[in-house]
Amino acid sequence: MADYLKMWQDLGMDVEMHNQLCEVLPQAFGDVYLTQKNRPEAMDYFNFVVAEIHGVRPVELIEHQKKGGKVFGTFCLYVPDEVVFAAGAIATGLCGGSQFWVPGGEKVLPVNTCPLIKASVGARLDRTCPFFRIADMFVGETTCDGKKKAYEILGEDVPMYVMNLPQMKRRKDILAWAEEIKDFIKVVEDFTGNKVTEESLADSIRLINAKRTALARLYDLRKNENIPISGKDVLVISQIAFYDDPTRFTEKVNKLCDELDQRVKDGVSVFPKGTKRILLTGTPLAIPNWKLHHIIETSGAAVVGEEMCTGIRYFEHPVDETATTIDGQAEALAERYMNINCACFTPNDKRIDDIIRLAKEYKADGVIDVNLKFCELYDTEGYKVERALKEAGIPILGIETDYTDSDAQQLSTRIGAFVEMLSK
Amino acid sequence: MADYLKMWQDLGMDVEMHNQLCEVLPQAFGDVYLTQKNRPEAMDYFNFVVAEIHGVRPVELIEHQKKGGKVFGTFCLYVPDEVVFAAGAIATGLCGGSQFWVPGGEKVLPVNTCPLIKASVGARLDRTCPFFRIADMFVGETTCDGKKKAYEILGEDVPMYVMNLPQMKRRKDILAWAEEIKDFIKVVEDFTGNKVTEESLADSIRLINAKRTALARLYDLRKNENIPISGKDVLVISQIAFYDDPTRFTEKVNKLCDELDQRVKDGVSVFPKGTKRILLTGTPLAIPNWKLHHIIETSGAAVVGEEMCTGIRYFEHPVDETATTIDGQAEALAERYMNINCACFTPNDKRIDDIIRLAKEYKADGVIDVNLKFCELYDTEGYKVERALKEAGIPILGIETDYTDSDAQQLSTRIGAFVEMLSK
Ligand code: SF4
Ligand code: SF4
Ligand code: SF4
Ligand code: SF4
Repeated sequence: MADYLKMWQDLGMDVEMHNQLCEVLPQAFGDVYLTQKNRPEAMDYFNFVVAEIHGVRPVELIEHQKKGGKVFGTFCLYVPDEVVFAAGAIATGLCGGSQFWVPGGEKVLPVNTCPLIKASVGARLDRTCPFFRIADMFVGETTCDGKKKAYEILGEDVPMYVMNLPQMKRRKDILAWAEEIKDFIKVVEDFTGNKVTEESLADSIRLINAKRTALARLYDLRKNENIPISGKDVLVISQIAFYDDPTRFTEKVNKLCDELDQRVKDGVSVFPKGTKRILLTGTPLAIPNWKLHHIIETSGAAVVGEEMCTGIRYFEHPVDETATTIDGQAEALAERYMNINCACFTPNDKRIDDIIRLAKEYKADGVIDVNLKFCELYDTEGYKVERALKEAGIPILGIETDYTDSDAQQLSTRIGAFVEMLSK
Repeated sequence: MADYLKMWQDLGMDVEMHNQLCEVLPQAFGDVYLTQKNRPEAMDYFNFVVAEIHGVRPVELIEHQKKGGKVFGTFCLYVPDEVVFAAGAIATGLCGGSQFWVPGGEKVLPVNTCPLIKASVGARLDRTCPFFRIADMFVGETTCDGKKKAYEILGEDVPMYVMNLPQMKRRKDILAWAEEIKDFIKVVEDFTGNKVTEESLADSIRLINAKRTALARLYDLRKNENIPISGKDVLVISQIAFYDDPTRFTEKVNKLCDELDQRVKDGVSVFPKGTKRILLTGTPLAIPNWKLHHIIETSGAAVVGEEMCTGIRYFEHPVDETATTIDGQAEALAERYMNINCACFTPNDKRIDDIIRLAKEYKADGVIDVNLKFCELYDTEGYKVERALKEAGIPILGIETDYTDSDAQQLSTRIGAFVEMLSK
């Protein structure tokens, strides 16, 4: 990625430190991804995106900025990309998934903070990620304690806007969220100088719905007995969804699906017959956090679905496209987003129903409940999740992990034992 | 406290386990409290309340229930007692402050949960606290991640109602909180069968305001150069405020203040001249958590104030008494409660202003920022708090602790060094 040196310098990055990341990332991707056999050809595009992750897309974003466009960085599924695109701006995900950024976050945050938050803050403050430099405005939300307070610290370093997410899902909360979305429209309009119109919002709703539909198509293919694509490969696609140009991304996912359709017709699987099928549930796995999928898929099992924000929560429930006023569209957006079952809500029992439904839909032999260390929300909710799954007769393994490699051996052992148990 | 055995049995308590607590609590109180010299005589009442904590007040609550009255248990300053009393019911605090209850909480909650939450859940599930057995309904709030999710688990064992606290304090959030208060009025009316009228609510607003005024009077006395009462003694009074009958409590606090007024006139202090004055800030110290005050006041310093929910946040800002409709009263309540600077809000910069103001008002030589382990909110906010105090030239020590005694020695050393530093 050496060609981008000048761009990184212009972005005020710590180029020397960033070089360390550039040295390890391709190796990690190679080890985890390129060693897989019989990968779909259409994965080439996504391989390329990862290989050039700090180059190609940043260049596009900077081009957009040179033409006067703005870039908004987000940290949660609840922040509606539709609003950003409707103002002619670009939204990009900013969640950090590498241990590389964690020490930078620990300079200002408690060690007892989930690694996703520490990495996200560290990536900004250490100036080692171009996306965190490029975004003109960061948009946060009042979801978990850690993020809510971390935004205050980030907000000292970059323009920051925080949306107040209600913590329940009664009718009045959905309407309050619609109001927050309308406030956000105003913020985005002011910041970009562009008006959000019924037409532009309708366009962007369709744009993001198309992305959701493509991802739903991809995930549907995993429900086949012959699994045409590895869980790892789908994971990285889900991660790229947060960063990539939505039109191109949708096109590339659909192209991949065409190839996978053919595989299904031909009865091709990337896993041996009888491989145990795992549904993951829990906290998000931000790029480049591939640890768990790698362990599972080198332990004789296949990941067939992720009830996660980097996964199924991202694309289920399209936004209703029939509203024709900003008020109506904001309400349609609020209703759609309020279908996401994040553990920050109370109660959040629909998530449990979802896990059971998805375990059936994806024909999972077992579920692994993954918690990022110090995520109190998902950890506490795990008590009810695991109990409900046991009651439903679905084998469940709860694990807690962070971004370090120190527990890889132990996780391998536990996951290996779980898979073996499923095979009996 | 043996006379209450039958009551405890009738409450379905685990009497055997509870006996263990009854054996250690008087000893702890004796060691921490009764060893102090020159205590105000009017402390006798509060000594008695602690000595009979699982007896006297529970008896009163049960008497109230026998007459058809209801008891509501709460966990946060934001839940308005005024509403409960206006319906002829009684509100009682339910936060657990002893390690005794922690293992019970850990049976269902992550170990990485703040001890206050673990103790509160454990006290209920292990059936070792009469208050947790007596309360007919528990009232929660969406403040921190841990409590929010713990309420879901508590709600399986006891009728539970949760109020949706906004996470910001814009005008619309204050109005949303007023709406939540009106919803709560309906819940309380339904549950008690009693109507909340403008008159009854006006009465209870005055009742709780009087309690606040008495506590403000008590705290004001600590601002004197000659400190007429120890920090420990005031702490236990602040803790009792959550449990006791408000009318009697107010009367007893005022009686104590009369005695302290005389001490001030006579130039009496319970500390030697030149004792360094400490303001505490941070997470609440629920009864019987006296650990920190004990360490500080046996390290040659005096605690002169607590910017805490068990302290100044509890009583500052009376409710405006001029509103004459339920709507107006709900708004007045919302406005008052929204003055509490809890770290669950973002931003919460007024808390920092408050700490600096209070350090001056109470003539503090230094501030100790106390965090209960795994309280992500106050821990993260501590970064800004400690920076702001340094900038204001106020010495600050940040500490993290839990309910165990394992860190007592280490805390003593650190606090001792801090006090010594203040003396130079
Ligand atoms: S887990 Fe919750 S807070 Fe995190 S990205 Fe998903 S919806 Fe947002
Ligand atoms: S994993 Fe949990 S603690 Fe971490 S950012 Fe998401 S919700 Fe917050
Ligand atoms: S610290 Fe916050 S959540 Fe806890 S009692 Fe106080 S106001 Fe409520
Ligand atoms: S101390 Fe912190 S984590 Fe514990 S109950 Fe209070 S706000 Fe929640």
